Amino acid sequence: MPDELTRIRRLPEKAVEDRAALDAVLDAARVAHVAFDHDGQPMNIPVGCARDGDRLLMHGSTGSRLFRRLAAGADVCVAVTLLDGMVLARSSFESSMHYRSAMVFGQARELPAEEKDAGLRAMSEAWLPGRWDTLRPSKAKELAATMVLALPLERWSVKISAGPPDDDEADLDAPVWAGVWPIEWSWGTPVPAPDLRGEHAVPPFPPPPVG
Amino acid sequence: MPDELTRIRRLPEKAVEDRAALDAVLDAARVAHVAFDHDGQPMNIPVGCARDGDRLLMHGSTGSRLFRRLAAGADVCVAVTLLDGMVLARSSFESSMHYRSAMVFGQARELPAEEKDAGLRAMSEAWLPGRWDTLRPSKAKELAATMVLALPLERWSVKISAGPPDDDEADLDAPVWAGVWPIEWSWGTPVPAPDLRGEHAVPPFPPPPVG
Repeated sequence: MPDELTRIRRLPEKAVEDRAALDAVLDAARVAHVAFDHDGQPMNIPVGCARDGDRLLMHGSTGSRLFRRLAAGADVCVAVTLLDGMVLARSSFESSMHYRSAMVFGQARELPAEEKDAGLRAMSEAWLPGRWDTLRPSKAKELAATMVLALPLERWSVKISAGPPDDDEADLDAPVWAGVWPIEWSWGTPVPAPDLRGEHAVPPFPPPPVG
Repeated sequence: MPDELTRIRRLPEKAVEDRAALDAVLDAARVAHVAFDHDGQPMNIPVGCARDGDRLLMHGSTGSRLFRRLAAGADVCVAVTLLDGMVLARSSFESSMHYRSAMVFGQARELPAEEKDAGLRAMSEAWLPGRWDTLRPSKAKELAATMVLALPLERWSVKISAGPPDDDEADLDAPVWAGVWPIEWSWGTPVPAPDLRGEHAVPPFPPPPVG
């Protein structure tokens, strides 16, 4: 249930309280923006993210002072927004965008050493299913340099904007096209590494990140 | 020049100090994430954004308590991140993403009534070039309900990740494909409004939002 923090006040008709909607937004994303206070200065850092059950995993460097601040239990507001299209109404005022937007509030926990590799595997499998097992195991020094944060999916809100333009009746005879321009994501042509050795097939593509 | 706040510490080789790079990232975006403090709670709201010369315009509702907080001069960190591809290295550790990322720090100013329509026009022209002049003028009540914020592009940083995977020499013989999967954006098939009256051509598409 929404609380004082997570209740959507603007355009509340676009709020979605279904947990499956949250999962769908997070699962379609690769990048989240993490807002937190840093000695009185708001910060907002983009991080790679992947949902793992009831938590959102994010990874970064153990050498990052900002990640260390997050690991120390800073309050965060993590936002994920997927832009799905432009809504061309008959008026500027009613023109808008299609989007799916999620916000998660809370404090992240740093995964301890013994959980880190499993966390990285979960992120890799979310992004590039099947790839993890084709790669060599992580080295101890690599794990030591990597921080994985887990944010519980407990306090969150989701807002989805879809559907046709909603023009005033008085504007419907305006001599302009009105409707929606969808925005679509796709995979481009893979670019092999210049130092690729031997013949290796491009792995099968998962669904595009957003779609 | 970067200062204590805008200097990039992690992967500093990806930092770009060229103002044209900032403009290119902002011009390719439609959505920014605005981080700010709200009575001790970090907030992070997605907003429609468009660059207008030396400022970033963002719009919202005058009825939004969060926008009113921004208009009152809250310190913000506005982040724009464009995801360009997945980097498949021979190890999990070197695998990463291609992105273009901008952060702008400062305080936004609310455009006064006499500048608001010009601000909205600038945003519309950035998103849908040529459309503004095909629509009726804004109504006074519409302008009254709309807030336009302008954030000066004075304190900012840009970070760009591109190029091939950077594997350790010892990993180059790994029996896997390595390279980059580009992510591309495109316009889908326009969906006319169900209540469209008359025959109106779909306006010409501008370049896709990101690409």
